[in-house]
Amino acid sequence: MFEVCLLGTGGMMPLPYRWLTSCMMRYNGHNLLIDCGEGTQIAIKEKGWTFKPIDVILITHFHADHISGLPGLLLMIGNSGRTEPLTIAGPKGIGRVVGALRTIAPELPFEVEITEIMECEVLDLAGFHIQPFKAQHRVPCLGYTVSILRTGRFDAERAKAAGIPLKYWNPLQKGQTITEDGVTYTPDMVLGPDRKGLKVLYCTDTRPVPAIAECGSKADLMILEGMYGEPDKLANAKEHRHMMMQEAARLAVQAQPAELWLTHFSPSMNWPEQFMDEIRGIFPAAKAGKDGMSVDLCFEEEEA
Amino acid sequence: MFEVCLLGTGGMMPLPYRWLTSCMMRYNGHNLLIDCGEGTQIAIKEKGWTFKPIDVILITHFHADHISGLPGLLLMIGNSGRTEPLTIAGPKGIGRVVGALRTIAPELPFEVEITEIMECEVLDLAGFHIQPFKAQHRVPCLGYTVSILRTGRFDAERAKAAGIPLKYWNPLQKGQTITEDGVTYTPDMVLGPDRKGLKVLYCTDTRPVPAIAECGSKADLMILEGMYGEPDKLANAKEHRHMMMQEAARLAVQAQPAELWLTHFSPSMNWPEQFMDEIRGIFPAAKAGKDGMSVDLCFEEEEA
Repeated sequence: MFEVCLLGTGGMMPLPYRWLTSCMMRYNGHNLLIDCGEGTQIAIKEKGWTFKPIDVILITHFHADHISGLPGLLLMIGNSGRTEPLTIAGPKGIGRVVGALRTIAPELPFEVEITEIMECEVLDLAGFHIQPFKAQHRVPCLGYTVSILRTGRFDAERAKAAGIPLKYWNPLQKGQTITEDGVTYTPDMVLGPDRKGLKVLYCTDTRPVPAIAECGSKADLMILEGMYGEPDKLANAKEHRHMMMQEAARLAVQAQPAELWLTHFSPSMNWPEQFMDEIRGIFPAAKAGKDGMSVDLCFEEEEA
Repeated sequence: MFEVCLLGTGGMMPLPYRWLTSCMMRYNGHNLLIDCGEGTQIAIKEKGWTFKPIDVILITHFHADHISGLPGLLLMIGNSGRTEPLTIAGPKGIGRVVGALRTIAPELPFEVEITEIMECEVLDLAGFHIQPFKAQHRVPCLGYTVSILRTGRFDAERAKAAGIPLKYWNPLQKGQTITEDGVTYTPDMVLGPDRKGLKVLYCTDTRPVPAIAECGSKADLMILEGMYGEPDKLANAKEHRHMMMQEAARLAVQAQPAELWLTHFSPSMNWPEQFMDEIRGIFPAAKAGKDGMSVDLCFEEEEA
């Protein structure tokens, strides 16, 4: 199962009742965190999770509400006993920013590997297939799709017909290529066509841009900024490069994800639910995010 | 009134039910904050206070649990509409650390004035009389006494006898020196001897050192680290340069403050109150700190 959890749903500042927007994804013993504002480590504790399995941290941009919790989180991960390297990826400059923040977290028992995303290249990290794309904010900002890819079904008849020794079936199924006595066996000899995986899109702090709908096409879940619901806040949203709930819903109409979650609510918005009838009128499978809200996404056959 | 509030009582890491140790002092429209770990801005919001009157931030040392909330707090102070300069003071290196953290809070509508405390010199800032002193931690660490000084009582008979024009009585009472037609009038001509002010000592992340008892002598309130209560944690406290509750109480016996509050509890300590019978056996006016706990300290005559 691929668990996706919205640790917090607040934009700009943490509130006593709402953590800053960040998202935890958990698959196969590995955890990936997107954004880490002040208090994210407490939100993780409230879920009852440990810090050790956090392998990847993706940062969307360098505004404090998306990264100020990083030094504290890194220290917590250190306290958890982790010694394996951890990757932090983000826009150009991520190395400089993480370096500066580590002034107060200089000693960690694990390596921090920095990936500066320059050309929105695909990353494969800890079993997560990550596609960054450019958002449109006041500063360079990235959205991400995080996918769990799925190979084709194992085809024992083909393996038999090709005369592949039984002992190689399992490694081939796991994607390994085997060479023995000059003969090479490849996974495609025993696997059917790739099956549909799972895809989640996360994009906040942005104006609506076509890349969001394109990258989120047929996603299992889109998590989008819905900073304001009141129509008269549109000018403000445009000026500060944020997205209205209605705009997010219209992107979902284009992308047709299975579900849309809205997040990164303005501190002025006490009760996002008040706008959801209107939003579901645009895209029915829309939900207002809540702190701690999570879903277990399953591969198609597992659902049965 | 001089209000002193323990915003949080946690050491090392913020917990879902306990903020990191920091202390707000409020006097005469001015606020002084000591330490600013992750989440301090939320603790301030929970008190219902605004951010604009924060004039001074004192940092004890540069471990993340005492300073990681600074960038977010500075941004909140900026959002509050403050344009007056704000002073941040701390041990040598404070300029470098604040500069690094401001990588994610580069633009503020007010000036940040940095005071590096090298020789524990007295500071007078925004009406607070601050005496730093050296604590003993793994890294350079300062304790502070913060006092509200009080001038002598106004003596109208002396002012009259000295022939001081009535129009100067008020400015002289407020501490101004006046020169007119070659004659100089000084405050001591109209004021009696200095009266007892108010003094609060704050010291955490330290082994017990004599300076704590000396500086805290007869304080109205001592706020001291009480990291552990279990006797078998003493070796740990010594190794990591922290203070036991019992050690803090014994310092209070020497200093004889009106009251002792313990704070900076280990995350392993769920219920500090369980040790307080023993602690009050050492120093009766001791309290276990709680998040949000506050006191209004009054000058002697005001108490009546």
